[in-house]
Amino acid sequence: MQVVFLGTASCFPTANRGVSCIALRHEDGFVWLFDCGEGSQIQLQKSCIRPGKITKIFITHLHGDHLFGLPGLVATISTQCAVKPDFILEIYGPQGLRQFLRQSLVLSRTELPFKYQVHELMPESYQLPEDWENWRFDLSEERLHPQELQGTQISARNDVWTVIEQKNTKTSVLAGHNEHLRIPSYGFVVQEPDANGKLDVEKLKSLGVEPGPLYSQLKHGKDIVTPDGKVVKSNEVLGPPKKGRKITIMGDTCNSDKMIQIAMDSDALVHEATLENSMVENALEKGHSTPGMAASYAFAINAKLLLLTHFSQRYRQSNEEDGPRLEILQREAEEKLAELKHSKCSVVLAQDLLEVPLYRLST
Amino acid sequence: MQVVFLGTASCFPTANRGVSCIALRHEDGFVWLFDCGEGSQIQLQKSCIRPGKITKIFITHLHGDHLFGLPGLVATISTQCAVKPDFILEIYGPQGLRQFLRQSLVLSRTELPFKYQVHELMPESYQLPEDWENWRFDLSEERLHPQELQGTQISARNDVWTVIEQKNTKTSVLAGHNEHLRIPSYGFVVQEPDANGKLDVEKLKSLGVEPGPLYSQLKHGKDIVTPDGKVVKSNEVLGPPKKGRKITIMGDTCNSDKMIQIAMDSDALVHEATLENSMVENALEKGHSTPGMAASYAFAINAKLLLLTHFSQRYRQSNEEDGPRLEILQREAEEKLAELKHSKCSVVLAQDLLEVPLYRLST
Repeated sequence: MQVVFLGTASCFPTANRGVSCIALRHEDGFVWLFDCGEGSQIQLQKSCIRPGKITKIFITHLHGDHLFGLPGLVATISTQCAVKPDFILEIYGPQGLRQFLRQSLVLSRTELPFKYQVHELMPESYQLPEDWENWRFDLSEERLHPQELQGTQISARNDVWTVIEQKNTKTSVLAGHNEHLRIPSYGFVVQEPDANGKLDVEKLKSLGVEPGPLYSQLKHGKDIVTPDGKVVKSNEVLGPPKKGRKITIMGDTCNSDKMIQIAMDSDALVHEATLENSMVENALEKGHSTPGMAASYAFAINAKLLLLTHFSQRYRQSNEEDGPRLEILQREAEEKLAELKHSKCSVVLAQDLLEVPLYRLST
Repeated sequence: MQVVFLGTASCFPTANRGVSCIALRHEDGFVWLFDCGEGSQIQLQKSCIRPGKITKIFITHLHGDHLFGLPGLVATISTQCAVKPDFILEIYGPQGLRQFLRQSLVLSRTELPFKYQVHELMPESYQLPEDWENWRFDLSEERLHPQELQGTQISARNDVWTVIEQKNTKTSVLAGHNEHLRIPSYGFVVQEPDANGKLDVEKLKSLGVEPGPLYSQLKHGKDIVTPDGKVVKSNEVLGPPKKGRKITIMGDTCNSDKMIQIAMDSDALVHEATLENSMVENALEKGHSTPGMAASYAFAINAKLLLLTHFSQRYRQSNEEDGPRLEILQREAEEKLAELKHSKCSVVLAQDLLEVPLYRLST
């Protein structure tokens, strides 16, 4: 499993840095995308991700630098990929996303070789700014795009949006509220199921159990009886289960307290760090975070890895011209974690096309 | 006056080539943009064009590779540019454009420091494919974006859309029909007014007329009487007028016969040449042109310069890896022009960021 950063800039894309787009590549090779700013399809072409592997797209909020690449990406997936006829591209995000994508695809008369479906997270009243009604948008559902399937509306229960339900062997996704600048913004918590432990093949052979269907039963926790009448208990030959990974990917945010509980004990936290600590007032005014705030959140949820992204264009990478360096942001997060004595959490500074492996740890 | 190519690829953008976006830089420094595919704002940053100089944007048709960069560009103009409070960004394009831009800006809650206005070209029935009604989009006008001014609807008269009217010293724009793939597509004809000729200052001085307000009157075609009672006729001291330039910029097209008359005698013709001559069937099937078709059109309208663009991704630039070369397309256009004995027309192969000066010729 890998997190691949396709764009790490805030506000607008440049030749050197794309805007928000993060790929989560699962062990089975399929890819989930989180946000899709303008130019994400160009970044994808430079990366290890093949567009045809994308099965789900999650949009944290509807600001343009997280959204405006979506219609083009969907159109390009359709021109470049041989997909199975029963494939459904599932898209999740704030209310309004469905109408935006539908209108963009209808107006451009984009035919797709697959179906798609948009599931909307319905806002809670505390997510709406006072002037929300001044920015009303059309939500009529009278006519779908020719390849569109009617999506669902996902409402919160106790501040938690169940985006993809937990089932036995399925990765689940929950969403929580990210306070941001006058727009509903969400963080997503991806939880892999635990995987079965490893069978002790040597021991099984010594017990006279040869590879075959009985192995599968033992692997799934069932005790068996061998052909010669011996009982073999699953827990005697099965190693400890491998704990599923938990990854939390935040939208733009200056306060995510409402989702601490669902994000607790994340193996990795992707968190924005738009501006350095000394610019905290500026950051808060724009609904953003500093590295200190991101580190405090990593501490609050007991995260093991903090991945910083969404950097202001004022910060330069090492191959760029003069200006304040991105490394400031990493140092400030590390200092905050040290201050909080949260030493088991590492900090990684994202950069475009960076691939971060997420190892599955045994319990 | 310059044409600056910001994207020359068809269908989808890559790291090496942007999709359709052409800047026309006027002598006064202001810029008109023609089409705005995804990533055009990134291409602009690499170019000589400053976003704050863009005053008008024209969209030839609503396919994504000509359109999907528009909301992001408008948003970025607003964050990067100090504009005058009375500035109005004027946008022209097919019906549906207004609603697309409005919805994108409203959903993303993009506030602008200037006003904008979308003027729509209303389609003629022959532009609509049989299944047009299956792709219906919302055209309700009930509520504008907070910074939006109500735009106009421009209907055709005898197949000509008068986009910007001809006035004495104003550059006019007409539009005509480009046959394309199941979507209304337009070509734009930009006509500069003629400029006054040059005053013969030496002659004026010999007649005893010193620089001052009288020069301006002569320049504007008025005869004058000098302080000592001498009559000086304007046409005796004024050189021949400089003919205004005429530039025709086509949308995607496989047939533009309906606009031959308004495009006649263009100083420059920007025409797509998506696929080479031997692939003409493929080109026509997708509503596109070959270099031979573009050259024939240049001949039909008696153009002096043919600028080819909108190339299939199958053609490689000289700095790219193996594959058919873009130069094939130039050679085929030149061969067609030679065959037609239209020797006064040069062919230029566009490439991203190419700046082509358009000289003003005297009559």
